[in-house]
Amino acid sequence: MKISILNGPNLNKLGTRNPEHYGSNTLQDIEEKLQDTYPDDELVFFQSNREGELVEAVQALVESDVDGLLANFAAYSHSSIAIRDAVELLNIPFVEVHLSNIHAREGFREQTLTGSLADGIITGFESQSYILGMQALRHLVTGQ
Amino acid sequence: MKISILNGPNLNKLGTRNPEHYGSNTLQDIEEKLQDTYPDDELVFFQSNREGELVEAVQALVESDVDGLLANFAAYSHSSIAIRDAVELLNIPFVEVHLSNIHAREGFREQTLTGSLADGIITGFESQSYILGMQALRHLVTGQ
Amino acid sequence: MKISILNGPNLNKLGTRNPEHYGSNTLQDIEEKLQDTYPDDELVFFQSNREGELVEAVQALVESDVDGLLANFAAYSHSSIAIRDAVELLNIPFVEVHLSNIHAREGFREQTLTGSLADGIITGFESQSYILGMQALRHLVTGQ
Amino acid sequence: MKISILNGPNLNKLGTRNPEHYGSNTLQDIEEKLQDTYPDDELVFFQSNREGELVEAVQALVESDVDGLLANFAAYSHSSIAIRDAVELLNIPFVEVHLSNIHAREGFREQTLTGSLADGIITGFESQSYILGMQALRHLVTGQ
Amino acid sequence: MKISILNGPNLNKLGTRNPEHYGSNTLQDIEEKLQDTYPDDELVFFQSNREGELVEAVQALVESDVDGLLANFAAYSHSSIAIRDAVELLNIPFVEVHLSNIHAREGFREQTLTGSLADGIITGFESQSYILGMQALRHLVTGQ
Amino acid sequence: MKISILNGPNLNKLGTRNPEHYGSNTLQDIEEKLQDTYPDDELVFFQSNREGELVEAVQALVESDVDGLLANFAAYSHSSIAIRDAVELLNIPFVEVHLSNIHAREGFREQTLTGSLADGIITGFESQSYILGMQALRHLVTGQ
Amino acid sequence: MKISILNGPNLNKLGTRNPEHYGSNTLQDIEEKLQDTYPDDELVFFQSNREGELVEAVQALVESDVDGLLANFAAYSHSSIAIRDAVELLNIPFVEVHLSNIHAREGFREQTLTGSLADGIITGFESQSYILGMQALRHLVTGQ
Amino acid sequence: MKISILNGPNLNKLGTRNPEHYGSNTLQDIEEKLQDTYPDDELVFFQSNREGELVEAVQALVESDVDGLLANFAAYSHSSIAIRDAVELLNIPFVEVHLSNIHAREGFREQTLTGSLADGIITGFESQSYILGMQALRHLVTGQ
Amino acid sequence: MKISILNGPNLNKLGTRNPEHYGSNTLQDIEEKLQDTYPDDELVFFQSNREGELVEAVQALVESDVDGLLANFAAYSHSSIAIRDAVELLNIPFVEVHLSNIHAREGFREQTLTGSLADGIITGFESQSYILGMQALRHLVTGQ
Amino acid sequence: MKISILNGPNLNKLGTRNPEHYGSNTLQDIEEKLQDTYPDDELVFFQSNREGELVEAVQALVESDVDGLLANFAAYSHSSIAIRDAVELLNIPFVEVHLSNIHAREGFREQTLTGSLADGIITGFESQSYILGMQALRHLVTGQ
Amino acid sequence: MKISILNGPNLNKLGTRNPEHYGSNTLQDIEEKLQDTYPDDELVFFQSNREGELVEAVQALVESDVDGLLANFAAYSHSSIAIRDAVELLNIPFVEVHLSNIHAREGFREQTLTGSLADGIITGFESQSYILGMQALRHLVTGQ
Amino acid sequence: MKISILNGPNLNKLGTRNPEHYGSNTLQDIEEKLQDTYPDDELVFFQSNREGELVEAVQALVESDVDGLLANFAAYSHSSIAIRDAVELLNIPFVEVHLSNIHAREGFREQTLTGSLADGIITGFESQSYILGMQALRHLVTGQ
Repeated sequence: MKISILNGPNLNKLGTRNPEHYGSNTLQDIEEKLQDTYPDDELVFFQSNREGELVEAVQALVESDVDGLLANFAAYSHSSIAIRDAVELLNIPFVEVHLSNIHAREGFREQTLTGSLADGIITGFESQSYILGMQALRHLVTGQ
Repeated sequence: MKISILNGPNLNKLGTRNPEHYGSNTLQDIEEKLQDTYPDDELVFFQSNREGELVEAVQALVESDVDGLLANFAAYSHSSIAIRDAVELLNIPFVEVHLSNIHAREGFREQTLTGSLADGIITGFESQSYILGMQALRHLVTGQ
Repeated sequence: MKISILNGPNLNKLGTRNPEHYGSNTLQDIEEKLQDTYPDDELVFFQSNREGELVEAVQALVESDVDGLLANFAAYSHSSIAIRDAVELLNIPFVEVHLSNIHAREGFREQTLTGSLADGIITGFESQSYILGMQALRHLVTGQ
Repeated sequence: MKISILNGPNLNKLGTRNPEHYGSNTLQDIEEKLQDTYPDDELVFFQSNREGELVEAVQALVESDVDGLLANFAAYSHSSIAIRDAVELLNIPFVEVHLSNIHAREGFREQTLTGSLADGIITGFESQSYILGMQALRHLVTGQ
Repeated sequence: MKISILNGPNLNKLGTRNPEHYGSNTLQDIEEKLQDTYPDDELVFFQSNREGELVEAVQALVESDVDGLLANFAAYSHSSIAIRDAVELLNIPFVEVHLSNIHAREGFREQTLTGSLADGIITGFESQSYILGMQALRHLVTGQ
Repeated sequence: MKISILNGPNLNKLGTRNPEHYGSNTLQDIEEKLQDTYPDDELVFFQSNREGELVEAVQALVESDVDGLLANFAAYSHSSIAIRDAVELLNIPFVEVHLSNIHAREGFREQTLTGSLADGIITGFESQSYILGMQALRHLVTGQ
Repeated sequence: MKISILNGPNLNKLGTRNPEHYGSNTLQDIEEKLQDTYPDDELVFFQSNREGELVEAVQALVESDVDGLLANFAAYSHSSIAIRDAVELLNIPFVEVHLSNIHAREGFREQTLTGSLADGIITGFESQSYILGMQALRHLVTGQ
Repeated sequence: MKISILNGPNLNKLGTRNPEHYGSNTLQDIEEKLQDTYPDDELVFFQSNREGELVEAVQALVESDVDGLLANFAAYSHSSIAIRDAVELLNIPFVEVHLSNIHAREGFREQTLTGSLADGIITGFESQSYILGMQALRHLVTGQ
Repeated sequence: MKISILNGPNLNKLGTRNPEHYGSNTLQDIEEKLQDTYPDDELVFFQSNREGELVEAVQALVESDVDGLLANFAAYSHSSIAIRDAVELLNIPFVEVHLSNIHAREGFREQTLTGSLADGIITGFESQSYILGMQALRHLVTGQ
Repeated sequence: MKISILNGPNLNKLGTRNPEHYGSNTLQDIEEKLQDTYPDDELVFFQSNREGELVEAVQALVESDVDGLLANFAAYSHSSIAIRDAVELLNIPFVEVHLSNIHAREGFREQTLTGSLADGIITGFESQSYILGMQALRHLVTGQ
Repeated sequence: MKISILNGPNLNKLGTRNPEHYGSNTLQDIEEKLQDTYPDDELVFFQSNREGELVEAVQALVESDVDGLLANFAAYSHSSIAIRDAVELLNIPFVEVHLSNIHAREGFREQTLTGSLADGIITGFESQSYILGMQALRHLVTGQ
Repeated sequence: MKISILNGPNLNKLGTRNPEHYGSNTLQDIEEKLQDTYPDDELVFFQSNREGELVEAVQALVESDVDGLLANFAAYSHSSIAIRDAVELLNIPFVEVHLSNIHAREGFREQTLTGSLADGIITGFESQSYILGMQALRHLVTGQ
């Protein structure tokens, strides 16, 4: 199984910011943990702080052999119509994850434009959100 | 590990309603699947259509030996201050789950009063939301 | 023809409250009048002040031999997502009635969550709303 | 008994538009059905697509010998202060009807300015709304 | 001096409706009183219940020899963009009057689309609003 | 006839500010013009920039021999609950005036808390608003 | 004097939750303190977490010999139209109390539907709110 | 090809009003220009200031041999549910045009009720909007 | 014990206004009643209609020997950020009282900016609100 | 004539997404069609998914020899203040186009920040929007 | 250079309140620091807790020889239309300062009515805001 | 002292756009002026029109030897959650500047997401905003 794992703005600095919201793992820690947990899957990691690059990373999945998308669009989840429109191009399963519980913070994090197009959302379990998201995604891809 | 699994209104009729939103499993199917997946844990199931009974089911956890709460308060998630206040009494991990993606439906399902107090929320994976929620909860309880 | 007639909170006290809004009949008066008017129909009356019991009364219709639902969910019409979700389970005709005109009172009575799923709504004719509602329901059930 | 039956914009085209909302009867069908059902009453039918003509049709009732008003102001129900002000001139019973359930459509159809002055409202039963409305009106006029 | 005096919907029924809001004079009483008070001015009276006719009555002033407009657009003041756009065509003084105080009634009467283009507004003095409005208008026309 | 004429904040600087909104007369010009126009009336002028003083000036009318109140509370009209509450103490006629048309400026000038308790409002005729207001007030006081 | 003292959801767990908001007394402590303070009055205590039971507890007062109602409907104060409608049935004095200051917490606690029908409200004095409320109620009942 | 070209309120006065918004052409200029540009098409022009007449002009297209509708409902675009409902009756292409850019003016011109049912909208090019609209409509009608 | 008792705008006119909202006592009656009820306490009374004076009266408490503040800021409670900021300077107990129930009147009286900083609020018991407020304050000061 | 044609996010994937909204042409199809239709004009095409690049593409026009801008900023039209500010730098004609009718979709597509600065907008004609937009732009540039 | 330095409510108590928001300097400290920093300028200090006095202090500048206004209207910045109107009378430079960052506190401090008329605003630097504001003002006055 | 000076979208075109809002200096002028004014400080200038690059420019400061951040995020201040989240990573002083007064323009410029995390904001002094901002920042860095 081949999975694209996209991460949005500021996640490259994970582990240095607000541990009470985001935990103390770095993004690399999370990526290694994911690969360790799912050693037989091909995981393709990409992080960008740039909305346009994330739009293109989503577009690149359209005619690829990737089986599913696991994404944390972070700040852009709440405001990017452009990424939302790119996600609408996909016909593979898509799971959105967030490190912190988006319903327990500022009002502007409660809505998720990209998440409204996701199969499901996992929010609040810090790095564990990714492990759970990967598991959910595998379930959707295999239909089991 | 002892886990309380609370379900709110209309979940007793699962499998008969809107399969495109909620899947085709009954609540009993889900409970059995949970117990089968976690055979060593003591799972205490309770479902009620009544807000007050759910308040009391949450209260009952306060001085119990239960290690965590997995709950789908369904319709009451979006409007019940009373259940929210009961949840505030707890000092054990709490994971909220929803069968359908609450960000992909009517506007009044986007806000979750109870979920704003949860450690994390898992929404949209039909019966799989419970399996993932249980896994997330175990992780929180054991701290691993 | 078998019809379920559900009444919500405070309707058991009808006749004692605000006659200018609700008329001077008691609920029993209304029920007798309904049965007298439709002597050949089997009318099953139920009143509850409790949201959860009303959820369950609606659920009980799902696999019953009842042909239609006539309901006045009163205060809960305006706020109960739980009853609304239960009503969504039904595939029999459903007519909502109100004693007073919900468009002529406080702003919070103008919206009806349950009514948005009804075949039709009759509001403002005091006890006559039930007679008219029963007639409308019979028409829907028989398709004439 | 003499009853004025007023119909608003686009009801002259009934039967050609959106049968799922409005049914397949024409306005003439409805008017004939009403007269057939109440052969002893004098029914005065009037339809107009023009707000001002409807204002005047309502005004004309003020010192007439008409006993009651049955009206479907259609689109103007939701926005016309002018018709609302004309209705305020009346001191005969007034019943508002709608073919489709105004609580089950676009948000701008949920409020009814004219309906807030009605004795009662019947909404959602297609052409049957008129039959029920007529019955309700007769009850109000005769006080029985 | 030649003055156009336009009156909107339901003002033809003045004197029959809500004396506490509008006083007990008829429109004819007001018109006579105006002419008696200003015997040397040419007063051109027009009343219509129809938005489009009022639009046209305003348009007719554009290239006429009328010196000023005194208008009570009644219900249409609060909602008619069409009359507002017609008023924008004028380059003669325009005074808006209302019988009742529009700031002391329902919320939807507080805004006046046409009044936002008036030189001034006089509201709440019943039939006296017209006398005062005429006086204000004469002052604007003569620049004294 | 004895009339109290109250003026609110910044009206003491009239004639120096924004002539396109307020005209070029000073407050003293207006007061003289008023007295000249109504030489037989006793006009009691008072201006204050202070909300509390205006509250007290209104209170002082309660058991006085003043026959009516003509007031331009200026900025405080739009926000002062305190002056509004003082006005509510009165049982003499009250006319509110504004130099500029409050419906043709910033949104926060459209509402008038004090004006909602006035018999009538005259707005937009610059200094002429006072002359008209005085005339309206005399009419209310004499009942003619 | 006979007084009904109703308590709403989660008050049965008082003393275990958020002492900074609610104080450290249990509900039983409060009830004993009330009885001790007013030894000659007959105090009838009732607590429920269930909206419907509270509706019925209020209804039960209608034709009882109870002289007044002291109630803390807690979470339901802010959202229950049903309890509000029950309270509307009463014609005895009603005092609403809250342990914490409802104006100093989350926005959704600022409005009180039930309190809008109370004679008065006492909010923020922890258990002392009840003592003061009882005193206020006695004053209303005796008219002294 | 036969095309209906409907124009709404105040467009009969085009060329006399606000040239910065609407240009200096009259409606007749525009109509001639349209016919000159499309000499082989049958263009049926109609203008009305009256909402009801526009409703009927749209209705008249339903069973006519007209191939498409080009309309500028002007002020009524922003507020008329009645015209919107008439447009819903059509099954021919419909293009809405506006002389001025509705997104560059007052807030109440930003929404278009009729335009939400159009195939497309052309706004802001003064009289050229009609030429472009006609071209767009021909394209829709011929499917080329 | 030394207590400051501050009263805001229009309370100096108590007894002359709207007895149904405020009762028939004058402020002097209330002050005497308070002193009579608490003969051993030093009560310092101050009333002002002026926001700024109330700001300063609150400031004066900061380094005084006053033990607590009982205040009815009346109209200013609902809008004065300045008094609210002054109250924030205090570190003595503060009880806010209102004669009428602020939750049972106009919408603009429901919010209280000053009350959001109070220990508690007592609203609706007419002059008795002060007696109860004094009792509450004594309890807070003595900690008993 | 030299024209810049800018396209925003996801338009590079045109033809693969939602044909019911956007048609089945690719962006290259549209560009070729435009050049074929206007063979004598120099058309400079640029597409980007990146807000910042679009800002710069607009800036590049400021001192260029380009005669007009035809742009479809897609998702960014609805939210980008940065592109809007860049557009404000221009003093050449600017026409905004959209493939789908922005008034017939989600609420967040109804407002266009960039379009509020356009000379005109053409929306809803799929690829034909560009042809029409080009024609409109040429008209603006040549002033014919 | 002669500069007026106005300070609003509660600034006379600076140094005693919330040092985390406002710093620990007193107003006198700030005034001395300002004079020390700009020894050659004539600084005229005035502080008031009263809205009306601040209105008048602003008015007094109109025909004075003062070269600029540096003001911190504190609480009144956010709500006073009266001071805003007074500021509108000025034609000298005006710089608004705030000790705390008004964008980092309660929502009601985000808007500044007076600041919307300022040349510029400096907010958040505690007493340093004044030094910077003075520097900015000098720059505006001298045009350097 | 080493200071990072970040500039957002369209500031590279400064001097060409709306001099009434932004002044006539170019960004280079401003940068030179800053360096001239503070010759001993190391100023690191960076401008980008791209949100993602600005996110990264902020991130780059986290473990750098830079002592403070002076930033004008321009359009992105008002809408970018991503830059706001990056700023939250910093633990050095941050001063936000704007050329024009953000409280004196369109409503969407009044809120600043990034500014809500700043130590202070300076807005409206054109290029002087930077000089003042630099001075403020130096003060924060040195604590003097």
